[in-house]
Amino acid sequence: MIRLAYGRMLRDALDGEHGLPREQLGDLARRFTAVREEVQSRRAAGEYGFYGLVDQGPTVRAIKTFAEGLGQAHDHVLVLGIGGSALGTKALLNALRRPGWNEWDDEGREFFPRLTVLENVDPTSVAAALERIDPRRVLVNVISKSGGTAETMAQYLVVQAWLEKTLGQAAHRHLVFTTDPSRGALRELAQRDHVPTLDVPADVGGRFSVLSPVGLLPAALVGIDVDGLLSGARRALERSETDDLLQNPPALYAALHWSADLTLGARVHVLMPYTDRLREFAEWYRQLWAESLGKRVDRSGKVVHLGPTPVAAVGATDQHSQVQLFMEGPFDKVITFIAVEDFGVDLPIPNPPDLSEALPPDLAYLPGHTLGELLQAEYQATSAALAQMGRMNCTLRFPDLSADTLGEAIMFFQLATGYAGAWYGIDPFDQPGVELGKRLTYAAMGRPGYVSEKSDQSLSDVV
Amino acid sequence: MIRLAYGRMLRDALDGEHGLPREQLGDLARRFTAVREEVQSRRAAGEYGFYGLVDQGPTVRAIKTFAEGLGQAHDHVLVLGIGGSALGTKALLNALRRPGWNEWDDEGREFFPRLTVLENVDPTSVAAALERIDPRRVLVNVISKSGGTAETMAQYLVVQAWLEKTLGQAAHRHLVFTTDPSRGALRELAQRDHVPTLDVPADVGGRFSVLSPVGLLPAALVGIDVDGLLSGARRALERSETDDLLQNPPALYAALHWSADLTLGARVHVLMPYTDRLREFAEWYRQLWAESLGKRVDRSGKVVHLGPTPVAAVGATDQHSQVQLFMEGPFDKVITFIAVEDFGVDLPIPNPPDLSEALPPDLAYLPGHTLGELLQAEYQATSAALAQMGRMNCTLRFPDLSADTLGEAIMFFQLATGYAGAWYGIDPFDQPGVELGKRLTYAAMGRPGYVSEKSDQSLSDVV
Repeated sequence: MIRLAYGRMLRDALDGEHGLPREQLGDLARRFTAVREEVQSRRAAGEYGFYGLVDQGPTVRAIKTFAEGLGQAHDHVLVLGIGGSALGTKALLNALRRPGWNEWDDEGREFFPRLTVLENVDPTSVAAALERIDPRRVLVNVISKSGGTAETMAQYLVVQAWLEKTLGQAAHRHLVFTTDPSRGALRELAQRDHVPTLDVPADVGGRFSVLSPVGLLPAALVGIDVDGLLSGARRALERSETDDLLQNPPALYAALHWSADLTLGARVHVLMPYTDRLREFAEWYRQLWAESLGKRVDRSGKVVHLGPTPVAAVGATDQHSQVQLFMEGPFDKVITFIAVEDFGVDLPIPNPPDLSEALPPDLAYLPGHTLGELLQAEYQATSAALAQMGRMNCTLRFPDLSADTLGEAIMFFQLATGYAGAWYGIDPFDQPGVELGKRLTYAAMGRPGYVSEKSDQSLSDVV
Repeated sequence: MIRLAYGRMLRDALDGEHGLPREQLGDLARRFTAVREEVQSRRAAGEYGFYGLVDQGPTVRAIKTFAEGLGQAHDHVLVLGIGGSALGTKALLNALRRPGWNEWDDEGREFFPRLTVLENVDPTSVAAALERIDPRRVLVNVISKSGGTAETMAQYLVVQAWLEKTLGQAAHRHLVFTTDPSRGALRELAQRDHVPTLDVPADVGGRFSVLSPVGLLPAALVGIDVDGLLSGARRALERSETDDLLQNPPALYAALHWSADLTLGARVHVLMPYTDRLREFAEWYRQLWAESLGKRVDRSGKVVHLGPTPVAAVGATDQHSQVQLFMEGPFDKVITFIAVEDFGVDLPIPNPPDLSEALPPDLAYLPGHTLGELLQAEYQATSAALAQMGRMNCTLRFPDLSADTLGEAIMFFQLATGYAGAWYGIDPFDQPGVELGKRLTYAAMGRPGYVSEKSDQSLSDVV
C-alpha cells in the first residue's frame, strides 16, 4: 500500500516561516464535505468515468485473449498515439519492464515483444522506426479516442502504406485499433477494413485512460500484469471513499496542493521519483495535472486563468540539475517525492579488490554500502534539506515498484486530479484551449471548412 | 545560422494587453551597455571560461586520436556521469545520431558503438546495463569534474569490479576518465592505475562543459562531427560580440526573459522544440537555466530568492499534454519554440491505395501533405494561437539540425545564461544550494567529518 507522508507541507516541520499552518488541515477537512459532495454528485452524473475502470472484467478478458493469441505472433508492438494515448503506455513500460527493454534480445525479454511508441509526426523518428522494424513481425496498435487525431491518423496512413507494401492484403492482420465504441474515423475504418478494435469507454477522457484498453492492451502484450494494475487501482479508489479528508490520501494531496497554490502562491508542482523507472510516470502525471487544471474559466464561466505548472524530475539525477533552483529559488514550489522502499535488486559498492591500494580518502565512505542505500540516503537528505530551507515537500512511499503499486499510484493521481478540479472550481475533464491551435493547423493543411486566419509572424523582429 | 524571432514577445503582436511593450526594447538596449561591460570584465577575470571552448585545437586532436584509436576497439560506450556530465552527451546523441541508436545493429550504426549514459544510482538501471553490456567490448568513460561526485564514484566502484571480474588486470584498458586537470580523487586514481584521462578545463563548470571533452569524447566515439559542433559554437560567440543588444541574439534572449520575469511575472520559461531529436536538448537547457539562475543571494549578498522555472516540452507531442495550460493558465510563462526548417528526410502522407475506398471525410485533408509539413503547420498554429491568447513566445529557427547548428544552439544558450546572470545580478556559475543535501547524504553514509543532523520526518503526518 502506498502511503502519503505530508508533514513537510506544514510550517511546523519547515523553517517556521514557510509552509501551511497546521490549523489549515482542520479548515480543509471541514471544507472537504462540500468538495466531496460535488465530486460524488458529478460522479453519479457520469462525469468521473475513470472510477469505473477498476471494474471491467470482460474487457480485461478480451485484452488477455488478444494478447495471448494474435499478440504472441509478433515480436514488435508499434503504438501510434499521442498525449493520453501514449504517455501511460510509456510509463507502464518504463516502470514494469527491464530497463532498456528494446535493447534486450528475445531471451532477455522473456520472448515478449519489443514496444515502440510513436507519439509525434517528426519525420526523422517515424522514418527511423519504419526502417528498423520488420513489417512482417509487427503489431500496430493505433490509439485515438476521437478517431480523428491529426498526428495519429497521419502516422496511420504512412504506416498502413508501409505495411501494405510488404504484406499486401494481409496488412490488416497486423493492425488493432483502440478508439471510441461507436464514433469517429478510426471506428469507420475498422469496420470497413475488418480491423479488430478495443473500446475506449465513452466516459473516460484520454488522459484518464491508461487503465482502459488504451494502456492495458500494450501492457498485456509485453507481459505486464494487468490484473495487478487494476487491483492496485481498486485499493486506491477504496481508500478514497471517505468523507474524512485526513484519511483520504488523494483528496488530501489535492487539498494541500490547492491550498499551497492559493494561499502561498506555490504554483509549481514537482513530481520527483527517486528511481529511473518512474521517469515516464512523471511525464504522464505532468499531462494529467497540466491539462486538467490549467483553465481559463471556472465552472460558473468566470474568467480565472488558473492552473499549477507541473514539473517532472528524477532523483538522484536532478539533484545535479533542478534541485539548486528548488532549494534557493522563489518559494513557489511544492515537491512530491516518490520513495521506493525495496527495489528487489541492489548492488553493493565493493571495496577495491587489492586492499593495499586503498581508495582516496574522499571515497572511503562508499564501500560497504549499496547503490540502493545511497539512493535512499539522497532522497532523505534532499527532503530534509528542502524542509530546512523552508520548502514544502511530501512523499509517496511505495513498498515496492510492481504492477500493484503502480496501478495504485495511477489511480491515486487520477483521483487527486478529480478532487483538485473541485477545489479549484474548474472542469478537470475538458481541454478547450487546444481548439484554436487545431483550427489554425487544419486551415494551414487545407481542411475544408477551416478558413486561414492571419498567423504570420513579423519578419522584422528577427535577429 | 540560427535566427531568433522575438516579435511575439511584444504586446503589439499579442492581444494588446499582455506581453512586453515595444518601448522596452529601447530601454533594455540602453541598459545593456552596463550588462555587457560587467560580462566583459568578469570574462577578463576568468569567470566565463566556457567562452574559451571554441578554441581548443590540441584537445580536439587528442579526442579524435583517442576516438579513432582505442575507441574503435569497442562496440559500447558506457558513460558514468550525472548532471552536467550526462545531459549534454544525451542531447548530442539524441540530436545527431539516428533515432533509437542503441536498437540498430552494427550496420545501422555505421559500425560506431552503442552509447549508454548511467546518470543515477538506481540499482535496477545499473544492474540491467551491466547485465546487458559485454565487458570485453565496452569502453567506460567516467566523468566527474570534481572527481568526487558520490553517485558517479559509487557507479565507478561497481563498474570497476564488474570489469575486473571478467578482464582482471586488463580492466584499466577499458577505462578513460574525464576530470579536473590536477585535483580530485578521480585524477588520483587515474595516476595510480594508469588510466588515460582527458581534462575538464578548470574554469568551465559542469553545466557549461558539453563542448569540452565531457561531451566531445563520447560524441567523437559515436561518430559525431566535433569540428562541426565547435564551428557552430564559434559562430554563436562571434554574433554575440556586440554592444548592440538588438544585434546580439543570446543577450537579447536573456534580456527579454529577464524583463518578462521581472516586469510581468512570467517566471516559467518553456523550451519546446518541434522535433523529437531535441527532447534531450531541452533537458540540458533545463539544468543550465535552473541551476545557473535559481539563487538565494545576489552578487552583493542580498537575499533575493529568485530564478525562473525552466520547463522542457516537445512539439507536436506536448500539444496533447502541456499546451492546454500554456494557452489558458496563468500569464506566467514564456515559450521558446525551436523550429527546424529542413529535416533532410520527410515522409509523404499517402492516399489510400484503393481510390474506390476513400478515406472518411474527416481525414481527407491529410494525404498529399507530408509529416514534415504537418509538424511545421502545427508549430506555426501553436505559436499563432498562443499569441492570440496573449501568451509571449519566441522562436529559434534552425535551417537544419546538424552538428553545426546544434553547436551554435548550445553556445547560444550558454551565452544567454551568462548574460541572464548579469541581468538578474546573480552568480550564474555556482550552486551553493545543493551543499546542504550533500552534507546530509554524507552524514547518512557515515563519511568522516559529517555529523548526522536531525532529518527524520514526522511519523504521524502519514496517510
